Amino acid sequence: MNVLIVYAHPEPKSFNGALKDLAVAALTAEGHQVQVSDLYAMNFKAAADRDDFMMPENPDFFKYQLEQGHASRTNSFSQDIKEEQEKLLWADFVIFQFPLWWYSVPAILKGWFDRVFASGFVYGQGIGRYDQGGLKGRKAMVSTTTGSPRQAYTPYGMDGDIHEKILYHIHHGMLYFAGFEPVEPFIAWTPARDEEARNRYLDEYKKRLQNLSAIPSIPYHPTAHYDEHHQLKIEYR
Amino acid sequence: MNVLIVYAHPEPKSFNGALKDLAVAALTAEGHQVQVSDLYAMNFKAAADRDDFMMPENPDFFKYQLEQGHASRTNSFSQDIKEEQEKLLWADFVIFQFPLWWYSVPAILKGWFDRVFASGFVYGQGIGRYDQGGLKGRKAMVSTTTGSPRQAYTPYGMDGDIHEKILYHIHHGMLYFAGFEPVEPFIAWTPARDEEARNRYLDEYKKRLQNLSAIPSIPYHPTAHYDEHHQLKIEYR
Repeated sequence: MNVLIVYAHPEPKSFNGALKDLAVAALTAEGHQVQVSDLYAMNFKAAADRDDFMMPENPDFFKYQLEQGHASRTNSFSQDIKEEQEKLLWADFVIFQFPLWWYSVPAILKGWFDRVFASGFVYGQGIGRYDQGGLKGRKAMVSTTTGSPRQAYTPYGMDGDIHEKILYHIHHGMLYFAGFEPVEPFIAWTPARDEEARNRYLDEYKKRLQNLSAIPSIPYHPTAHYDEHHQLKIEYR
Repeated sequence: MNVLIVYAHPEPKSFNGALKDLAVAALTAEGHQVQVSDLYAMNFKAAADRDDFMMPENPDFFKYQLEQGHASRTNSFSQDIKEEQEKLLWADFVIFQFPLWWYSVPAILKGWFDRVFASGFVYGQGIGRYDQGGLKGRKAMVSTTTGSPRQAYTPYGMDGDIHEKILYHIHHGMLYFAGFEPVEPFIAWTPARDEEARNRYLDEYKKRLQNLSAIPSIPYHPTAHYDEHHQLKIEYR
């Protein structure tokens, strides 16, 4: 498979860096093709703004989504956005490697979603959403590290259920929205505190990567049942 | 009251810009003191990195959270972070004005949270979390605009419940975590599509701002009931 790793951590020696390095080595050893977008090393621009468009349609009233549609039609995204979109089209499987900061992705990775997941590329302009999104046919996996222990992220934990409450906006709102089939996330709980645990996580992650296509998908609502008001249509029999 | 508006939209003529301008005028007319952090106009740096610290403790192994703690102890955050922290300490009420992008805040605002909500300032270094967070005693309100209609954000809608599934990571994970008492969000649904609706939203928002202290708070779990494993302790009677 073609695997893209989108990696967001400012320190190469971090545990996130180790997970990224391990993934490159393990996937290459399995015969996969691997590309890495190392957002900090690339100094990837996070803020969505006018510089994202080489031929803006309306410089006097800047509407980001409309400019994305125009840039999609005229192939006029800035070079850094084009390159990331090309990597996505190349990929069969995308891994997002990042530390969970403030219940979400670091800003540099949020900027990658804001800018690369463009209208006219992953949705809009005749492209659907969710299972009809522009990146359909591809899988995506979140691989993240937390600052609180596992118990904090349960339904009765202090932070709230990691799947239903915290990662939802990433799995459903970013990945599935764009057409990806999200698979079960790899979560390393508070790896900063325990070297033995870090080694166990590396072993576990390696095993998972050695059988990439076996990772279970996360089930989502099929969008086929939504009506024109974007609301679930329940048919009583 | 002292009101800080943290505003993230690249176009001053946008509806988000209109809501921000209205808030400044309406709150000033009510006798409140108002400051605005216009993140795009400030060219606010989104990516958390080494430049955030004037006297890094360990330049060879960059750990963001540890450097935040060190900078808190030594008052050595970069100037832009210091200024935002001072505004937060000054404020009684903070409004976050932004468009909902990919189920979350735009990257430039996520970067504001990553960088300004520092360890040693809003949590950590002897400061608690949630109702014991560093910003306790202050209220915060999300004011946002959506791209999908209201029906899409219901429990059976295509996007999912806006409160429990989407805004949770902001209300609980960012605002309440830091000690804020979050109040009910102001949500303008798909304002881009309908001028009459925009005018109704402006009227409604103005009325809300004229009675700031009457906006109901969002109830959250009290952290007092959490045990040492960060899990809710239920006492059966």
